[in-house]
This record gives sequence, C-alpha cells and structure tokens, in this order.
Amino acid sequence: MAKAITRRSEDYSKWYTDICLRAELADYAPVKGCMVIRPNGYAIWENIRNALDSMFRETGHRNAYFPLFIPESFLKKEAEHVEGFAADCAVVTHGGGKELEEKLYIRPTSETIIWHMYKKWISSYRDLPLLYNQWANIVRWEMRTRLFLRTTEFLWQEGHTAHATEREAREETLTMLEVYRRFAQDYMAMPVICGKKTEREKFAGAVDTYSIEAMMQDKRALQAGTSHYLGQNFARAFDVQFQSQEGRLEYVYATSWGVSTRLIGGLIMTHSDDNGLVLPPKLAPTQVVIVPIWRSDQQRAEVLEAAGKIKSVLQGVSVEIDDRDNVSPGWKFNDHEVKGVPVRLEIGPKDIQNSQVVAVRRDTGEKSTTPMSAAGEVIPKLLSQIQAALFNRAKALLDDNSYPVETYDDLKSKVDQPGGFLYAHWCGGHECEDRIARETKATIRNIAIDAPREEGACIICGEPSPHRVPFAKAY
Amino acid sequence: MAKAITRRSEDYSKWYTDICLRAELADYAPVKGCMVIRPNGYAIWENIRNALDSMFRETGHRNAYFPLFIPESFLKKEAEHVEGFAADCAVVTHGGGKELEEKLYIRPTSETIIWHMYKKWISSYRDLPLLYNQWANIVRWEMRTRLFLRTTEFLWQEGHTAHATEREAREETLTMLEVYRRFAQDYMAMPVICGKKTEREKFAGAVDTYSIEAMMQDKRALQAGTSHYLGQNFARAFDVQFQSQEGRLEYVYATSWGVSTRLIGGLIMTHSDDNGLVLPPKLAPTQVVIVPIWRSDQQRAEVLEAAGKIKSVLQGVSVEIDDRDNVSPGWKFNDHEVKGVPVRLEIGPKDIQNSQVVAVRRDTGEKSTTPMSAAGEVIPKLLSQIQAALFNRAKALLDDNSYPVETYDDLKSKVDQPGGFLYAHWCGGHECEDRIARETKATIRNIAIDAPREEGACIICGEPSPHRVPFAKAY
Repeated sequence: MAKAITRRSEDYSKWYTDICLRAELADYAPVKGCMVIRPNGYAIWENIRNALDSMFRETGHRNAYFPLFIPESFLKKEAEHVEGFAADCAVVTHGGGKELEEKLYIRPTSETIIWHMYKKWISSYRDLPLLYNQWANIVRWEMRTRLFLRTTEFLWQEGHTAHATEREAREETLTMLEVYRRFAQDYMAMPVICGKKTEREKFAGAVDTYSIEAMMQDKRALQAGTSHYLGQNFARAFDVQFQSQEGRLEYVYATSWGVSTRLIGGLIMTHSDDNGLVLPPKLAPTQVVIVPIWRSDQQRAEVLEAAGKIKSVLQGVSVEIDDRDNVSPGWKFNDHEVKGVPVRLEIGPKDIQNSQVVAVRRDTGEKSTTPMSAAGEVIPKLLSQIQAALFNRAKALLDDNSYPVETYDDLKSKVDQPGGFLYAHWCGGHECEDRIARETKATIRNIAIDAPREEGACIICGEPSPHRVPFAKAY
Repeated sequence: MAKAITRRSEDYSKWYTDICLRAELADYAPVKGCMVIRPNGYAIWENIRNALDSMFRETGHRNAYFPLFIPESFLKKEAEHVEGFAADCAVVTHGGGKELEEKLYIRPTSETIIWHMYKKWISSYRDLPLLYNQWANIVRWEMRTRLFLRTTEFLWQEGHTAHATEREAREETLTMLEVYRRFAQDYMAMPVICGKKTEREKFAGAVDTYSIEAMMQDKRALQAGTSHYLGQNFARAFDVQFQSQEGRLEYVYATSWGVSTRLIGGLIMTHSDDNGLVLPPKLAPTQVVIVPIWRSDQQRAEVLEAAGKIKSVLQGVSVEIDDRDNVSPGWKFNDHEVKGVPVRLEIGPKDIQNSQVVAVRRDTGEKSTTPMSAAGEVIPKLLSQIQAALFNRAKALLDDNSYPVETYDDLKSKVDQPGGFLYAHWCGGHECEDRIARETKATIRNIAIDAPREEGACIICGEPSPHRVPFAKAY
C-alpha cells in the first residue's frame, strides 16, 4: 500500500506536496526549481488548455508561436520591463560550440520579441487589431519553488494584442479578465475576486494590471491570472506606429494576459482533502471510474460485461473501467480516491442481480444506488451536482473568510489567524502599502472595479480612503 | 496588390520561401536561425498535432512534460549521444544573475532527462511499459537554416517508451513508424518510403533508426519522421533496471520517435504551386471559403444571407465567409489562392436567382456549378476528391522518379538531373556509402524492411549486394 498523505491540519505545505506526488501529477526534476509534469497532471493541463483555447477563439483570438530566445538588447528597450525581469532570466551565452556575440535570454514573457515582430506586420489601421495568443514554456529563475505554484520553468498561455485605440485596448484587457473569471468559476469551480493591482504589484511595463485572485483552503490568496493594459509602452519601445483612418501616424495600444500551470496548484488547494486529490468534473481527465468486483472468472466476465454496458450509455462522459487483475477492489478505491476521480461506480455480482450500480462521490464520500437503466441520466447529473457543490463550498470559504478590519493592529492580529481577505481602508499611497507588506507580508490583492464606495481613513496614515481593499498573504 | 511568388522553374528555393512568407505561415525572427510561426502556419501545426495525438492515444500513449534544461553531465552519460548532440546545443551558463555551477543545455532531444526520471518510476515489470509522449520546443544550433525545414528552435513531439523486452520495444518502434506512414499518407497526402537508416545516418544513441522519407517536387528527399529502437543504451547510461516477472534484475528496453514542424515544410513542397500554398483538406485550417459578390447594399444582404445558409449546411466542414468590404472579390480570390484554401465558393446575385453556387478547386483551378440544395453533399465529396487527387499526384511523382541505376557513373550523372530516388546496389559498407555521400551529396535514404531481394554488385567496390537501396539528395 502506498504511503499516507500528510493531513492538512498537520502540515498544509507537506499535504500539498504529498498530493502532487501521490496523485502522480508532478515530480521533481534534476534541475533545481524545475518539475516534470506527469501524465495525470498533464491531462489536467490539456483540459484547461482546451477549455480556455475555445474561449479565446470565441473572443476572436488566434494562436501563433514566437521564439524562446530574446536578444539581451530587446529586454532593455522597455525600462520598467528590464528592471522587472532581467535578473530572473536564464541566459544563453554559447551556441553551436561558440560564445555568442549577443547573449540570449530565455523568455520570461514575450512582449519584447512579439512587439519586435508586430513592427513588421503593422503599418495601417487595417492591420489592427492583432489578437494573438501563444501556448509556451517560460523560464523565470526562482529561489523558492513549489510544484506548480512557482517553478523555474512553467507552461502558460500569453495573449498579446495590438489595437488602434486606448478604448479598444482597455476593453480587451477587461474582456480577457472576464474570460479568466468565467473559466475559474465554471471550469475550476474556483470563485475569484477581480480587480486592479496597485502600482506596487503591477506587471513590469504595464499601465494597469488586473487579476483574478482565489482563496486557498489555508485562506491564503493565489493570484490565478492577470490581464494587462500596456498602453503605448511597448509600441514606443519598439517603434510600432500605424497610420490611422484619419491618416495620422500613431503608436499602437497593447494588452497582454496570461495564466499558467500554476492553475493546477490552485485547483489542488481549492478542492482536495486529506484523502487526496479532488477534481471538478469539468477538468477531470477521468470523470467516472468503474470498479468491477468479482470472486471468480465467471463473475469477472459478467461484471466486466455490465461495466462495458454502463460505459457505453455514458456518452460524452470520460469513463475508465479499472479491470486490473493484480490489485484488490479496495486498493483500487483508494487509488482513485488519491487521484481524484469525481465518481466511482462499483459493480459486483449482487448489483448485477439487482440491476443496479453503486455510485460513490469523491467530494463527499456519499454512496447512492442507481438502477442500471437510469445510469445514463443519473451519472451526468451527479457530475453536474459535484461541479456545483465544489464551487459552492469554495465560495462559502471565500465569503466566510472575507471580512472588514478597522485598524492596523486589528489587521496584524488577524492576518495569520484566522487569515483570509482582510478588507481595510487604505489611502492609496505606496508608503502605507509597502509598510504593511513589509511588516505583515500581507499585500493588497486587487481593487475591485466596482468596489462599493465607503468613506474611511487609511489604517496607517489616517488619510481619506474611498473604499476598502483586501489584504492577504499570498502564494 | 501583394508581390508575386517566384516561379518554381525560376528559383525553387526562393519559391518555397515566398510561399512561407506570402501565405503568412512564418516569418524570420531576430535571432539567427529562429522563426515565428504565424497564425496561418500554427493552425496547420495544430491540425497536425490533433490528428497525430489521437493516433498516439489509440496506440496507448499518454502525454507528459519534461524540463527544457538538461544538466551537462546528463548529456555525457551516453557516449554516442553526447557526440551527436553536444556541439549543436545552446548552453545556459547564467541564471538569476549568477553563474551556474553546472551548465544547462537546452534540450536538443529529451532521452537523457527522461531516462533520469524513468529510473525513479520503474522498478518492476509491473511498471512497464511506459508509453509517454511530449509536445515541446527543441533547440539545435543550425548553421544553414530554412523556414520550417531546418530552424534552430522548432516544435515537435517526442515519444519515449520503456519496455520489459526487446521484442516489445522493437514492435513499438515499427508501430510508430507505421503511425507516421499512415499519417503522412492519410492526412498529409504525402506518400513516403519506410525503412531502416544505415549506421552512418542513424540517431546518435540508437541501435536502429527507421524513417519515413518523402520526395519533394524538386525530387529531393525529405526525412519526415524517425522512430528509434534504442535497445538498452539509455537504460545502461542511467542505470534503469527492473525486476522481471521471473525475479531477475534487467535493463529496460527503449524506443523514441518524433516528427516536427518540418512536416509543414514537407506539406508545402509536396503540394504547392506557382500561385501559392496548396493544402490537403484534412489539414487545412479553412477548408472552404465563401466569397460573396455584390454591387449594392441590397445585394450584399442577399448574398451574405445565402452564404450563411450554405455555411450552415456544411456541418463538420471548416468554412469561412469572406465578407470584407474593403477589398474586391478578385483580390479575395487571389488571397485565398495564395493561402491555400482547398475550395472557394463564389456566390453572386445571379447565382441566387439560379439557386446555385460556383465551386473552384484550389488544386486544379477547376470550376463547377452546384445547386444550393446539393451543396451539403457535393462539397464534402469534393474535399475528399481533392485529398485523394493530391495524394495520387504526389504518388505519381514519387513513382516516376524512383528508378534503378547500374553504375556509379550512372548515379553521378543522374543525381542532380533528373534527380529523384536512385536505386543502386551497395555492399553495406560504410566506406562506399561515405564516398558516394562526399562526392555526390546523395545519401541512402533508408532500406525497406521488405526490400525485394536482388543479387547484385556494389556500384563502388563490386562486392555482393542483396538488394538495391535508394540514394538521393535530401533536405
């Protein structure tokens, strides 16, 4: 029998790692900070990719592929950008056995190389908008890494769009933020708060950064996706101008937006429990596992036949029949529990006699008996119920742990225990924000676009504050 | 109007590049030897990937993701492998602002990192086989590059499997060779010859390398995919042993196999013509473009409505309606011709009166008129006909330009003109093969597994030869 999973109450961080390893989602690579995404983990990433990719297409985007290598000089063209990224890069100095004339940076993000290309492709308003996305690997040299959540190399998508007007680019920024919110809610069953990052927390090179932020089970925040309005910063740095409909030369307006394999970390920490991985059905590579139970060869043949029939009526559901001979049903139950299959169907000789099948929910452990003839209707409904239940549970956690704090002492005393999103008044000033971050490690997650107006006083300096903002410790 | 495409007869190589650029498949990146895959090109790659990925799944494989970085020491563990690849690698010497203790190579292929991981995952025959594949980017420092065909960075898939027995691993090698052959034939409409590479041409680290080889329109060969039987070479280098069913410790048997974005180059050079790209319908991102023709706003509304109706009956066909206002129908015809849309449907006011639509085949230019009511049946059939016609045309080229040569002088005089696959007797010796390669640049493409036995004498040394082998210049 495989090793047990550490309990959350015992060591939350070890619990997380145990799940990654025991569910065979990922493993440590020999290069520090890098990971191997194993088939169970990669299948989740493929489901994430497919769902998001459809949403990107529906909003008019096309996929492309830009090079891994960025010349050193490119990174230096946008002042804030180079400051934000250059030190974290992996640098190629040799190629083909020779020292390179110009160092190449492995992309930490692709704005610079993409805007270099956009200059070749954009000359008139007729060329706009360009709505491109790429699925790619990214390298950022990280000191403290954790499987999925923060790794030196990770997989992501990065959208890069070019527009004729500020209005259109700003709309795009918010459209993609909404795509991320909808994906997090509808597929990941992970409620998020949407809003604008502060100056301190925004992307290096952006005018405005927006984010979706989720609350993990330990009540820490996870920034799960970002959408940036880049203004004309990159167009100026790479001299990308277009002739407008009125015949004027103008700089192009830009956005970029991305989510990464970090989302898998978010999935794990939103739903899983002490028994292993729990996956929302919409992203589960296997949604239903059928475990046939037999004691004799004849029974084996019968239950496998029945299992095959059930599988065949579950059209559109991803079903696996676990017909392994060398492990017991109990071992299989545990295995699929650890790996997070949303529904287990048990079928043995008695069930066949009664023309029924036993369904066990991964999220609640609840057992129910279904007539075989109804399985084709009941099981898909059960999957929808699980999807909804996971969201509701996560939403309750978020709601129950979002609360106002009135003073800095109040914030300090609660930021670790009970933790959560602490809504406090803040003047908008960098110094007050920075002091809180330094002293408590809590940061402002984001500022809701429609944050309800509530006059108050900054918990640090007492200056006027127009609304509360959520402070939290974050991954 | 856009620039014309160079004619094949004038400058074949420039024709190829013109197509890549004019059809907006790819563009040159600022880093020497790298390319940008533009949306039109990437959409073809996505179709290739989706089709192959299904075939990999059907043959029991699962996707995973292994790191980009390979420690220098890993590459050195397999003697032939390091000799074959180390000099062509891009090398990372700095990360996070510091010089690294051990240099990292950007993966030129992933055998070493994968077999390092396999050691962690394999201990018993119960863990076998491991049938993994990954879709990833690869870097090999190339001196002479060409869009898609040979670039410093490219995209590919690499399968890496681990088996308990030589027999099983050898079967896997040939199974995947057959998957590639079938994909080339059925999707790319590109006939290939299958066979084993000579020792001189095999993969560095393999026991045996098999390939599929296609003939381009200039009658040069393109190695389009390879499948390697690696024996126990990597298992020994990385000490991957398993306990067999009989309780013995044995080294694991391995295969690897891959195809890359080079296939897009093969597609272009197999089917395209002097007017632009020609794509087999099964891989065309847009299979049918409808060009509505109008002179007045009222006509515009009518033809667009009719176009919408036709699109709606073409279920399962990828259809685009080109309703651009700022370019003429003639301009659109040319544009879609350059970009290789297999079927163009023209529909104007007269066609509406006659309840008909005009279909134009990209491959032959043939026009036909179809009653609108029959479009849902006729057009999919037309697409199948085009798919078959493209294959037949390419097959005729391959057959017509595969022929025997009897002497070395014969080979030398024909290798450039008429070119093609020259079948000659060869003793099997490295020296004779090498001399031919050095003096004529023609290499043995591969040796068919079922090459018909025909006693003869090597065209160089006169020693006995059991069968002819195909010599050709290759990309």
